[in-house]
Amino acid sequence: MAGDRTRPGEFALIDRHFRPLAGEGAFGLADDAALVAPRPGEEIVVTKDMIVEGVHFFPDDPPAAIAAKALRVNLSDLAAKGAGPFGYFLGLGLRDGWTEDWVAAFAAGLAADQRTFGVALLGGDTTRAGERTIVSITALGRLPAGTMVHRSGARPGDVVMVTGTIGDAALALHQQKAGRLAPVALHRRFLYPEPRVALAPLVRRFAHAAMDVSDGLVGDLGHLCRASGVTVEIDAAAVPLSPDAAALIDAEPALLATALTGGDDYELLMAIAPADADACAAAGTTVTPIGRIVAGEGPPTIRGHDGQPLHFQRSGFDHFA
Amino acid sequence: MAGDRTRPGEFALIDRHFRPLAGEGAFGLADDAALVAPRPGEEIVVTKDMIVEGVHFFPDDPPAAIAAKALRVNLSDLAAKGAGPFGYFLGLGLRDGWTEDWVAAFAAGLAADQRTFGVALLGGDTTRAGERTIVSITALGRLPAGTMVHRSGARPGDVVMVTGTIGDAALALHQQKAGRLAPVALHRRFLYPEPRVALAPLVRRFAHAAMDVSDGLVGDLGHLCRASGVTVEIDAAAVPLSPDAAALIDAEPALLATALTGGDDYELLMAIAPADADACAAAGTTVTPIGRIVAGEGPPTIRGHDGQPLHFQRSGFDHFA
Repeated sequence: MAGDRTRPGEFALIDRHFRPLAGEGAFGLADDAALVAPRPGEEIVVTKDMIVEGVHFFPDDPPAAIAAKALRVNLSDLAAKGAGPFGYFLGLGLRDGWTEDWVAAFAAGLAADQRTFGVALLGGDTTRAGERTIVSITALGRLPAGTMVHRSGARPGDVVMVTGTIGDAALALHQQKAGRLAPVALHRRFLYPEPRVALAPLVRRFAHAAMDVSDGLVGDLGHLCRASGVTVEIDAAAVPLSPDAAALIDAEPALLATALTGGDDYELLMAIAPADADACAAAGTTVTPIGRIVAGEGPPTIRGHDGQPLHFQRSGFDHFA
Repeated sequence: MAGDRTRPGEFALIDRHFRPLAGEGAFGLADDAALVAPRPGEEIVVTKDMIVEGVHFFPDDPPAAIAAKALRVNLSDLAAKGAGPFGYFLGLGLRDGWTEDWVAAFAAGLAADQRTFGVALLGGDTTRAGERTIVSITALGRLPAGTMVHRSGARPGDVVMVTGTIGDAALALHQQKAGRLAPVALHRRFLYPEPRVALAPLVRRFAHAAMDVSDGLVGDLGHLCRASGVTVEIDAAAVPLSPDAAALIDAEPALLATALTGGDDYELLMAIAPADADACAAAGTTVTPIGRIVAGEGPPTIRGHDGQPLHFQRSGFDHFA
């Protein structure tokens, strides 16, 4: 466990790179724990997601992108519950051979996202982690008491809506694995997911049920329907695609499955009362209806251009499948 | 990323082993996030510590002991702030070749500790992690608003007190690394730290400043004093040792340094007004005065039997030193 004299120790590292990110309740990261004092009438929503080198990101991804992904996947979960983020805890496991430059760039990525999303570092820890860099973030959000939106509230007849476009990150990853250059806009969506933080109030106002699309649209539809005791009919042609994604799928139609099941979208999936669907679509410029919740059980039905159900080899991402 | 068909997928794994541990606000681990609704007049204290195979525990440590250590190091931080724990989030990174039996034993360890310490699982995630098992826990506690105890409140004249005995885990680790069998009681303290959860009210009532001893008594005294803008005089002979630790040090006096700087004690270190010291010692049967806070700066002074300051090669644990 001998150290490298050219690198700072644990406490100097925290002092130099993470203490400047500390927010209210973090006590300058100089205490053992942080204090979270909820405002009257509010509840706190907490989520925790870990990302691992070689599993969720590539070893040579820019450190700022790794920081952004680790934070944003958590902010996406909070947005899907209708919560506005305010703070996060960082567990950082540094791989063998880490450099202070890497840590500085990682911290700079966090700092940029703190400004973008209005969050602050509240605590955490830093450790050696061996062969792979590990980033574990616990994010905290707040919302008015009683307004958290669950996966379990979808009702037959609800309109299913998604934000943004689906499949961009999965197609970028697919191209990269196939040794092809992905269009920059798609690659950027893999590196820098855009959590729908600004749409949290829309979720609270309109959604009977919501979650973020992280493991693949089809799989996540299944999760939402199981939690709600319903099933769903989706029109594949209605699923919003970016121009780059549409072009790739036009050229190679089998990639539609990649787009619909690949994951890493970090868009919001919502079930909304029919009477509210138009208002919801008007309130969020990037919200698209893609199908209907129906009574019953079983996996989602995704209908292709000919009206026939599509079949997928796998519905979504499973860390161990 | 092909899976092993004899092992459950991510969602089956959570269903079978972790859903039974879920508490109020966790929604059966079937949502994206947990809801934390503070009680009126209370604040929430949050801490996060990650442990890594080969750094904080041995690959063949019992899974229940790894679970216990991951949880307890966090509960220890909460106790040191005066907070009573109620819930935790688990990030579990499983190494290549993991088995469902390992996960079942790990979850059983968590279940046992949930009963012991009155906490419940609120959320988290499970992922593949490559070469090493990683456990990242975020623990939440509560206390009456305004009563959190910081590192920064120690005042000159305060009596420095510690709970329990110091050095047991560090001596066990030292013996193990030297290829010697450690006494069972010491080895147990390395495997199963005993967080002083029951003493949180005592901390709130008496301590000007407190922290847990995790990185080594001398180093942690330094952290507490720096945060408080003071320094400290400690009488090494007053530091409470278990019979096994005392016997090892009698046989090999150099091991006193191991005991005082090795860490993994998870005892509480408190600075207490002189007028309260007797009451504090009487309230907690395992609380021992070991020295005094004094005005000034600089590292802690630890005086040996002859009254002369002891010098240590290192004062405490640093993950990167």
